[in-house]
Amino acid sequence: MSSVLRKVILPDSELPQHWYNIVADLHHPPEAMYHPATGQPATPEQMGVIFPNEILRQEMSSERWIEIPDEVQDILKLWRPSPLYRAIVLEKALDTPAKIFYKWEGVSPAGSHKPNTAIPQAYYNKKEGTKRIATETGAGQWGSSLSLAGAMFGIEVKVYMVKVSYEQKPYRRMLMESWGGKVVASPSADTQAGRDALAKDPANQGSLGLAISEAVEDAAQRDDTKYALGSVLNHVCLHQTLIGLETKKQLEAFDETADIVVACHGGGSNFAGLAFPFVADNLTQGKKVRCLAVEPASCPSLTRGSYAFDYGDTAGLTPIMKMYTLGHDFMPPGIHAGGLRYHGASPLVSQLLKEGFIEARAVNQVPSFEAAVQFARTEGFLPAPESSHAIRAAIDEALECKKTGQKKTIVFNLSGHGHFDLSSYEKFFRGELQDYALSEAELKTSLAGLPNL
Amino acid sequence: MSSVLRKVILPDSELPQHWYNIVADLHHPPEAMYHPATGQPATPEQMGVIFPNEILRQEMSSERWIEIPDEVQDILKLWRPSPLYRAIVLEKALDTPAKIFYKWEGVSPAGSHKPNTAIPQAYYNKKEGTKRIATETGAGQWGSSLSLAGAMFGIEVKVYMVKVSYEQKPYRRMLMESWGGKVVASPSADTQAGRDALAKDPANQGSLGLAISEAVEDAAQRDDTKYALGSVLNHVCLHQTLIGLETKKQLEAFDETADIVVACHGGGSNFAGLAFPFVADNLTQGKKVRCLAVEPASCPSLTRGSYAFDYGDTAGLTPIMKMYTLGHDFMPPGIHAGGLRYHGASPLVSQLLKEGFIEARAVNQVPSFEAAVQFARTEGFLPAPESSHAIRAAIDEALECKKTGQKKTIVFNLSGHGHFDLSSYEKFFRGELQDYALSEAELKTSLAGLPNL
Repeated sequence: MSSVLRKVILPDSELPQHWYNIVADLHHPPEAMYHPATGQPATPEQMGVIFPNEILRQEMSSERWIEIPDEVQDILKLWRPSPLYRAIVLEKALDTPAKIFYKWEGVSPAGSHKPNTAIPQAYYNKKEGTKRIATETGAGQWGSSLSLAGAMFGIEVKVYMVKVSYEQKPYRRMLMESWGGKVVASPSADTQAGRDALAKDPANQGSLGLAISEAVEDAAQRDDTKYALGSVLNHVCLHQTLIGLETKKQLEAFDETADIVVACHGGGSNFAGLAFPFVADNLTQGKKVRCLAVEPASCPSLTRGSYAFDYGDTAGLTPIMKMYTLGHDFMPPGIHAGGLRYHGASPLVSQLLKEGFIEARAVNQVPSFEAAVQFARTEGFLPAPESSHAIRAAIDEALECKKTGQKKTIVFNLSGHGHFDLSSYEKFFRGELQDYALSEAELKTSLAGLPNL
Repeated sequence: MSSVLRKVILPDSELPQHWYNIVADLHHPPEAMYHPATGQPATPEQMGVIFPNEILRQEMSSERWIEIPDEVQDILKLWRPSPLYRAIVLEKALDTPAKIFYKWEGVSPAGSHKPNTAIPQAYYNKKEGTKRIATETGAGQWGSSLSLAGAMFGIEVKVYMVKVSYEQKPYRRMLMESWGGKVVASPSADTQAGRDALAKDPANQGSLGLAISEAVEDAAQRDDTKYALGSVLNHVCLHQTLIGLETKKQLEAFDETADIVVACHGGGSNFAGLAFPFVADNLTQGKKVRCLAVEPASCPSLTRGSYAFDYGDTAGLTPIMKMYTLGHDFMPPGIHAGGLRYHGASPLVSQLLKEGFIEARAVNQVPSFEAAVQFARTEGFLPAPESSHAIRAAIDEALECKKTGQKKTIVFNLSGHGHFDLSSYEKFFRGELQDYALSEAELKTSLAGLPNL
């Protein structure tokens, strides 16, 4: 009988009953958010135009544990608790003394970690009478997840999809439509923000920041419609903490503890989801778990951005938040890890980085695809290009262990599959992908647009 | 705390240690296979040209339980044991007193049940020194799975992909290439069978039978190359029985027993995998579990074919087997459930049908897509078009229970996801899919080509 333990899956009964809110354990309170028009602290009433009350309550909460409603748990059980794997074949290929584990979030119906927050967001909207939700999507992971959640709760979903993805990933659009989502390329003619962008540049390929502007405008203008965001904000990070909470239990079953925790970083919730329950030990018990946020070198908000107040979107419709940012005018190049093309970062992740509780690293896309292919040919699963940034960093840490002989335990978030990203893989194999380094001059220009408070 | 049990996943330690061989429990011995050229019973030496010895031994075996090598178990544990779900949301939408369960095989890296046999086939080939394997693929599920298995064991894989799929499903090709598979559209210029077909009709869109001819010819002509088949044969059905063996244990954990077991039918291994461990109870204990093989109405070998000796491929290169067949010249219309486009059927499934231990039903593709969309919008996962045939029949059985008030327990095989089939979903939504009924005249013509023994 084979005695190798490749994975640990917890039973339905061990799905966590609460989300973990890191705000409770921060050493300093988070900065307030400010209203984009007045520059004054944003009030719940103002935010209530686009968000349901319970989401707002969670966004502002400093309770450590927030209960997960039964109706949400029932749906999360479709794919949660998700598996934690020991990457034994990859370890052997790398000839490293390190142990590598990966949390596999691609088992959700939408193929990534995003439904972890789409489901509760749709649930609270449903409970408060919302008929329709507007949102944006970059690579399509979030739009798919919210379309799925809309189908589960009978809510109409309108998705503004960044044009470069809309064109490169028709299958992602069709997936959203299969669940009943209505999808339009952004910039679109459906909003003022979209029409303005098109008037300025009819060939505008879109950005996550611009698509957010369109969705927020849509929600603000219709009484039956709210807005939902797939990353960045506190409540989104909160909902994703199931990833790390489960991982800690699963590592116990493997009889291991993590030395290094790795996740990719776009808006921050992917990283927050895996890392925050580990960062908690750094904050409250003085542990030294290295938590590493990995971003694309082409969109390096954490490693090269300013820690400053900025809008969450391009048009300046969202609240102003303190975060690492490249400036809300930043238009990232068309790299293929579409979900990581965001100018800003989660305020919570930003604060933790500023205060030294986590680390950040930028990696290029070609080495990330190399890591993804090495992973696929050893561990089998085909990673999303976003997740591949985490794989790159995890492999690099394991190779470092090979040099030093250290037997570290490395855990990374394999946050989604690459089934809708195969044209990017094909470009990689053909040698058509290029790395892109943001110049100092470009960075200076985009940072010049930061708002004054 | 939510008390709903949506799924049961067995731990790695409960992966079955043996495959179940139904030949041991048949009431009559299976018919022999005959050599295509001589018409005499095929000898192991003849078959050894294209198959490794251990595969041949399993093909001919009548042992009830065959041990799964540790090295195979280690890789199967990447996704096995796979989850068994209770379809509570679908049940509610149907308002049926029936309980519906589905076995979810889409969690494998290739997205279907096919790696269950690709992994052991590659393993035995590796052990016996094979450097290269040639195979065919219809929808691409099998070619993906063997490419994956090739990557795991360092074996080169050449895939002859039915041309209509090659053109409609570029992502499937790219997936195979990501694992290192070499893919060519069939009919191709690489074999005599392909060149002959192209000479006859340069616009030939291919068929599974023709692609098999190409792959068998390739393997027969090269010393370093063997052939691997993804369905039909006894050893393939054998490897798939893990599906049903796990399902029986999981139903116990749900405190249920199956009344109706449903799977789609193309070559037969999908159905065999889930159903044979249940059919075993019919054969040996006189139980009456209804086991239902669901095939497309456009390619109805079980429901309208002849139970006769026929070749497994179009060119007449494979052994002659007793099975339900539409005739090896049958060229199925370009329906989108590409994996079900096969003229024949597993000899074991055929014999069980002939002897009355299982049932067969044909369904059309439009109602199958309707079932798939209803499933996706209730249970979340997007089904492969092949699996959708099983969903259609399972829903129809549940609706029958609604009429009669019977509380039956229905279990079906959700054998794969539809991530690479979204263009078919789009055609369905646009109303561009049509049903196709094979005429009596067409059937008569294709049956006229049956070989004389």
